[in-house]
Amino acid sequence: MVPTTEGPFARYEEYGIEDPRITRIDDIYYITYVCYSSFDCRAGLALTRDFWSFERVGLISLPDNKDVVLFPGKIGGRYARLDRPMTAISGRRDVWISYSPDLLYWGDARVVMTPRPGRWDGAKIGAGPPPIETERGWLLLYHGVRGTACGQIYRLGVALLDLENPSRVVGRAEEPILYPAAPEDLLGDVRNVVFTDGAIIEDDGELRIYYGAADQVMCLATANVNDLIALCLKDMET
Amino acid sequence: MVPTTEGPFARYEEYGIEDPRITRIDDIYYITYVCYSSFDCRAGLALTRDFWSFERVGLISLPDNKDVVLFPGKIGGRYARLDRPMTAISGRRDVWISYSPDLLYWGDARVVMTPRPGRWDGAKIGAGPPPIETERGWLLLYHGVRGTACGQIYRLGVALLDLENPSRVVGRAEEPILYPAAPEDLLGDVRNVVFTDGAIIEDDGELRIYYGAADQVMCLATANVNDLIALCLKDMET
Amino acid sequence: MVPTTEGPFARYEEYGIEDPRITRIDDIYYITYVCYSSFDCRAGLALTRDFWSFERVGLISLPDNKDVVLFPGKIGGRYARLDRPMTAISGRRDVWISYSPDLLYWGDARVVMTPRPGRWDGAKIGAGPPPIETERGWLLLYHGVRGTACGQIYRLGVALLDLENPSRVVGRAEEPILYPAAPEDLLGDVRNVVFTDGAIIEDDGELRIYYGAADQVMCLATANVNDLIALCLKDMET
Amino acid sequence: MVPTTEGPFARYEEYGIEDPRITRIDDIYYITYVCYSSFDCRAGLALTRDFWSFERVGLISLPDNKDVVLFPGKIGGRYARLDRPMTAISGRRDVWISYSPDLLYWGDARVVMTPRPGRWDGAKIGAGPPPIETERGWLLLYHGVRGTACGQIYRLGVALLDLENPSRVVGRAEEPILYPAAPEDLLGDVRNVVFTDGAIIEDDGELRIYYGAADQVMCLATANVNDLIALCLKDMET
Amino acid sequence: MVPTTEGPFARYEEYGIEDPRITRIDDIYYITYVCYSSFDCRAGLALTRDFWSFERVGLISLPDNKDVVLFPGKIGGRYARLDRPMTAISGRRDVWISYSPDLLYWGDARVVMTPRPGRWDGAKIGAGPPPIETERGWLLLYHGVRGTACGQIYRLGVALLDLENPSRVVGRAEEPILYPAAPEDLLGDVRNVVFTDGAIIEDDGELRIYYGAADQVMCLATANVNDLIALCLKDMET
Amino acid sequence: MVPTTEGPFARYEEYGIEDPRITRIDDIYYITYVCYSSFDCRAGLALTRDFWSFERVGLISLPDNKDVVLFPGKIGGRYARLDRPMTAISGRRDVWISYSPDLLYWGDARVVMTPRPGRWDGAKIGAGPPPIETERGWLLLYHGVRGTACGQIYRLGVALLDLENPSRVVGRAEEPILYPAAPEDLLGDVRNVVFTDGAIIEDDGELRIYYGAADQVMCLATANVNDLIALCLKDMET
Repeated sequence: MVPTTEGPFARYEEYGIEDPRITRIDDIYYITYVCYSSFDCRAGLALTRDFWSFERVGLISLPDNKDVVLFPGKIGGRYARLDRPMTAISGRRDVWISYSPDLLYWGDARVVMTPRPGRWDGAKIGAGPPPIETERGWLLLYHGVRGTACGQIYRLGVALLDLENPSRVVGRAEEPILYPAAPEDLLGDVRNVVFTDGAIIEDDGELRIYYGAADQVMCLATANVNDLIALCLKDMET
Repeated sequence: MVPTTEGPFARYEEYGIEDPRITRIDDIYYITYVCYSSFDCRAGLALTRDFWSFERVGLISLPDNKDVVLFPGKIGGRYARLDRPMTAISGRRDVWISYSPDLLYWGDARVVMTPRPGRWDGAKIGAGPPPIETERGWLLLYHGVRGTACGQIYRLGVALLDLENPSRVVGRAEEPILYPAAPEDLLGDVRNVVFTDGAIIEDDGELRIYYGAADQVMCLATANVNDLIALCLKDMET
Repeated sequence: MVPTTEGPFARYEEYGIEDPRITRIDDIYYITYVCYSSFDCRAGLALTRDFWSFERVGLISLPDNKDVVLFPGKIGGRYARLDRPMTAISGRRDVWISYSPDLLYWGDARVVMTPRPGRWDGAKIGAGPPPIETERGWLLLYHGVRGTACGQIYRLGVALLDLENPSRVVGRAEEPILYPAAPEDLLGDVRNVVFTDGAIIEDDGELRIYYGAADQVMCLATANVNDLIALCLKDMET
Repeated sequence: MVPTTEGPFARYEEYGIEDPRITRIDDIYYITYVCYSSFDCRAGLALTRDFWSFERVGLISLPDNKDVVLFPGKIGGRYARLDRPMTAISGRRDVWISYSPDLLYWGDARVVMTPRPGRWDGAKIGAGPPPIETERGWLLLYHGVRGTACGQIYRLGVALLDLENPSRVVGRAEEPILYPAAPEDLLGDVRNVVFTDGAIIEDDGELRIYYGAADQVMCLATANVNDLIALCLKDMET
Repeated sequence: MVPTTEGPFARYEEYGIEDPRITRIDDIYYITYVCYSSFDCRAGLALTRDFWSFERVGLISLPDNKDVVLFPGKIGGRYARLDRPMTAISGRRDVWISYSPDLLYWGDARVVMTPRPGRWDGAKIGAGPPPIETERGWLLLYHGVRGTACGQIYRLGVALLDLENPSRVVGRAEEPILYPAAPEDLLGDVRNVVFTDGAIIEDDGELRIYYGAADQVMCLATANVNDLIALCLKDMET
Repeated sequence: MVPTTEGPFARYEEYGIEDPRITRIDDIYYITYVCYSSFDCRAGLALTRDFWSFERVGLISLPDNKDVVLFPGKIGGRYARLDRPMTAISGRRDVWISYSPDLLYWGDARVVMTPRPGRWDGAKIGAGPPPIETERGWLLLYHGVRGTACGQIYRLGVALLDLENPSRVVGRAEEPILYPAAPEDLLGDVRNVVFTDGAIIEDDGELRIYYGAADQVMCLATANVNDLIALCLKDMET
C-alpha cells in the first residue's frame, strides 16, 4: 500500500502515509492510517482481504488527528474508534473515542484519557494497536511521551477500557511496560522511541507486541495478557 | 440557550458557548455552536422549534473546530456543513466541508477554501451565516483575518460555491465587502472586528447582514445579493 | 523618586521603576515598586515620611516578580505582602503571599488566588492597592487580564481575604467592577487598560479608586465599600 | 525522603521532588530541593540528623527557582544560598545569591554569575553542590548548558567566589571540567547530560564529584582541588 | 509603479511592493522599495526621471531586509544605503549600512544603530526618508517601536550620522519627535502607528515630514531642522 | 586562523568563527566563513596563499546568512557564491545565489533551491563545499535537515546546477547520499549530524568528501563523481 497520486486521496497523502493499524472485522482487514500533507495530519481508512490489493474506503477525519484505530466489531450497535486530535489553542494531546453506524460517518466523540502531568506520559498519549477484548475490559496499549532537555521519550503503557462503554477507563497502569533501553531503541533516526501499531494475542494468553525502535528497526516483545490486566487494575485499587 | 452544567455536554461547555449559527431545515431551526472548555473548541448541535425551548442534539466534531455551519437541506442526498479545523502542526486555518446521512455522524471531509497569503484574508478564514442558495451557487459570507503589528483585523468577504458540489469554489471576491471603519467597529472589547453569524435574504434580493462590531454591539448592513454574486464572478473572469 | 544610577540598586533599575504601591505602617510610608532592568522585573522597597525624601530599604525579591504590595501592619506577628511571580515553565501568573519578620527577609510563600480560565481574569491577575481592612476580611482590588485577537484587556476585580489568614480567599466577585469603556480607557499608549495601584477609603465608607486609563491619564472612580464586600460574598453563596 | 501528600508541602510537591543538595551546618544536614507541581518549580528546605527521618522546614522561594544550595555556615552573620531564578520575560537563567538571618526568611538577593553567550555555558547555568571553602575562595561547581540542533548539552564548570562577599566572582574557568563523553553520558533517558548535586573533599585535597550521567546512572569523578582553583585563577589573569 | 507579474522581479513581488523611499541622485530619482513574496522581504531598486515611467534596476539584497534607503550621492567614492536586516536567530532589528561602487553590488556592511531596551525604541528601529545632509551631519529620521500588552507603538525619532563616516552616530535624541496622539493616528487599519518614508527640507530650514497614520491616511508634520539637530546633540552632551 | 579581537572584524567574530569553505581561484585560496556574534550570523571572506598566514578581505553579507561558498572562478564575467539566508518572518532556509564584480560588493541575488516539505531535506538546506565543475553542470553537495521528535537529522544530498546559469537546477537526487549511521555519526556533541564543507575530486573521478560526524570527529567518504551526476539526472527524467 503506497500513497496515491491521483484521485481524491492524493491531495492529502502528498507527504506520505504512516502508522497503519489493522483491525479485522469479519473477514475484512480494515486499515486506519495517517494521511500527511501540507494540510497536516488526518485519518484515512483502507481495507484489504488478501494483503495484495488494497481499497481506499474514505478519509474519516478532519485535521489534525492521528493514532486512529478501530475496535474489532460493533459496540452497542455502532462501530467505534479511538482518536488523538491535536489542538492548536492549548496544545492538547488526549485520546478520544468516536462512533459510527457505517465506518464512514463519525460522531458522538468524547474524551477517554488524558496525559498525566509530571509523569512518563505527561506530554502526550495516543493509542497503539486495536484494543484487545478480554474478560475484564478492552486492553489498550498506548504510547506516552515526556519531554526532556534532550528531546522526547516515547514509552508504552497499558490501560483497560470498559467493555460496554469503552469511553470509561477501568484501570491504567502507573508505570510504562516498555521503554527505550536496548541499543536499538537508543540509536537510530529518532532515538528514545518505542512505538507500536500492532499486537497479536496467542491462545495461551501471550501478547506479541511488534514495535518500532528508534523509527528504524522492528522488534518483538512479549507479555502475558493477564499480567498486563493486573497492572491496570492493581494501580486502581490503591 | 445557556451552557449546560449537567449531562454529557457540560464537560465541553465549561468555559461557555459562542457563535451560534441558525439553519432552518423544514420546520426545525438547527443551531451549530462552539463548545469551549479546557479541551478547547469543538462543535455542538442543538435545535429549537420556537426559540423558547432548546434541545441539544449532539457534539458533532472533535477539537479543534470552529465556525461550523449547516447548509439548509440535503445536497445529493446528504446533509452538509462547513468546518474550520485549526491544525497544531502548521497552524492552518482553512474552510472544509463534511457530509452526513443524519446530522449526527459526519465524514467525507475535504478542503474548500484557504487563506490567501499577503492579502486581507491571509491569516485565517471561517464561514459566517448558513450559505444562501442562489441561481449561480451557494453564496457564502466568510470572515477573513490579517495580522498586523497592532493585532488582527477581521473583515467580511464573499464567495460562491457550486450548487451540486459545494466543495468547489465557483468564484471569490478579491476585496472584502465589509470592514471595520465606523467608530463602533474600531473601539470596544475586541477592536477592529466585524463578524457575522446570521444573514437574511429578503424577497427583493436585499441581503440583511447582522454583524457584531468589536465584539460589543450588534449592527446591520445590507447589500443586494446580485451585486455580491457579481463580485464573486467578476474576479474569476480576470 | 527616580531610578538610582549609583549604588546596589542601580543595576536593577536600569530600565526604570514603575507601579509604586504605598502602604502606611505606623508613621512611615512604605513603597513597593517594580525594578526593571536587563535582569527583568523584581521588587524594591523604599520608604518616606514626607514624600520629599525617599530612602531605599532593600531589593526584596528575585526576578520575575511584580505587583508586590504590603499589608498595612503585622498579621499574626509577621509582615505580609502579596506577590505575582511569573513562571517561565508554564507561564503562570498567580497571586501569592509571603511573610517576613522584618520587611527585609521573606519566606513561607504560598498561592492565594489563580486566574479563572475562560473568564475576564483568565490570563493573569495581580494585586492592586494595599489590601483594605474591613470587618469581613481584607478587601483586595486586583487586575484581571484576558487575551483577545486584538490584544489584552485589563479590568479590575475584587476579592476578600481572611483577616487572620490572608492566604485564604473568603469571597471573590464573579464580574469585574471597572473595565475600559470611556474614551480615555480605549485610546492612548496602551489601550483597553484600567489599572490601579492606589485607593483610599473615606470615613463614610466610600472607596476612592485612583486608576490609570490606557497607561496615559489618571482617573478617579468611587464605590461603596460595603457594596464591594457584598459582591465578593454574594457570589460565594451560590 | 519522598514527596508529601498531606500538609502544606503537598500542593507544591504534586509532580515530585528532585535535585536534593545537602549542606552540613553544625550537626544538622540541611537539604534544599526542588518542589515540582502545576505551580512549576520552587525551593523546599528539609533537614535530617541521621538520614532515616526527615523534617520539612519550609518552602523558601517563590516559583520559578531551582538549583538552590546553602553555603555551609553563616557569612558575615547571615546564612547564604545560591538561587537560579528563571525569568519569563527574557528567559534569563542566571545564578543569584540570597541571605537570611534564620534559614526561613530570605532577602537581599543579587546576581552572581551569568551565562557566557556563544560558549559552552551560554544558555543557562546553575549551582551544583554546596560551595566548598578554600583559602582562595568558595569553590563552586556549576552546570553550564548550550543548545544545539539536537538538544542541549550539560557540562560542569568551576568558579571561585569571594570568601567574605560570595556575590563577587574571583575567578571562573574558561573551559568545562567534565562533559559527556563516556557511553553512560551519551545514552540514557536524557542524553548528553552530566549533572552534580554533591561533592566531597578529602583530607589530601582530592575532590570526589558524584554526578548523574544521562539522568540514568550515578558516576564518580575526582579532581585535585588546587588544580580546580588554578583553573579559575589562571583564566582571570589573562 | 505596480508589482510586476513577469520577468525576474515578479517572483519576489508576488504579495506586493511597499514602503518606497525616493532619493534624488543627479537627475535621477532612485526608489528603494520592499519586495514582499513567499520568500519574505527583500529590497528592490527602481528609478524614474519623470514619475510617469519606472525602470526596475535590480534586486539589491537577500531576505530578510526592509527599510532600505539610499544616501543622496557618493560618500568617500562609494554609494551608501541604510539596511534593516531581521535576524532569525536572536530576532535582531538593527539599522546597518552598506556600500556600493555602482548601486548594484553591495558590501562592507556594518551596524550603525541598535534599539535601546526598555525605551520607546526598544523593540526595533528602521530608517525613514533618505538622510538629509546638514552641516552637523546626516540627519536621519527613523521609526522606533515598543511592544505593549496591546500591540506595538510606532513612533518617530531622530539621529545624526557623521558626514564622512555615516556608520558613526554623532547624536541621537532621547525622546521621539512624533508619536500617535491624534485621532487619525489612533484609529485605522493598524492603529498606534506613525511612519514616514519621505521628508523635504525647505530653504528656510523647515522640514516637511509626510507620514502615514494608522496605515490609513497621509499626514504632514513640520519641524525646524536646527531644532532637530539640537535634540540629537543635546542628549549627547549629558 | 582564529577570531580577531581587534579591528573591524572583531565585533562580528565575538562568539567565534565556523564552517570555513575554501575555494581556489587562480593561486589564491579564498575562505568564506561564518562570523558569529551577538549580531547573529554573517559571512566573512579571508584569503591565504600558504595556509600559514591569513588575510581578512571583507565582511560580505548582512545577517542572517550562513553556508556561503564561492564558485571557483568567474561565471559570465562575474564571481558567484551560494547563500543561505535565514528569514525571520516565515523562517525560510533556502539556497540563494549572488554575484559580484570584485568579491567585495554583491548583488543580483535570487533563489536557487528550496527544501522539499515532508522529505529528508524538508526543514532546511545549505551548500556544502565549493561547487565542482563537471561536463554536465556544477555538482553541489548540500546538507538537508529534517526535524523529528528527538531533534534534527542532518544528511547530505547532491544537485547539479547549470554551468552557464548556476541559478538553474539541472537535476537533484531524490535521496540523500550520506546519512548518520555509523557510531561516530550517532554519538557525540551534536548527534545525528553529517556535515561537509570540503571535498576534493581526484583525477580518476573519485570524489573525496571530508565530513564532520556529530560535530566531533572528521571522517572521509568517497564516491564516483559520475555516479553522483547520474543520481541527479536520473531523478529528473522520471
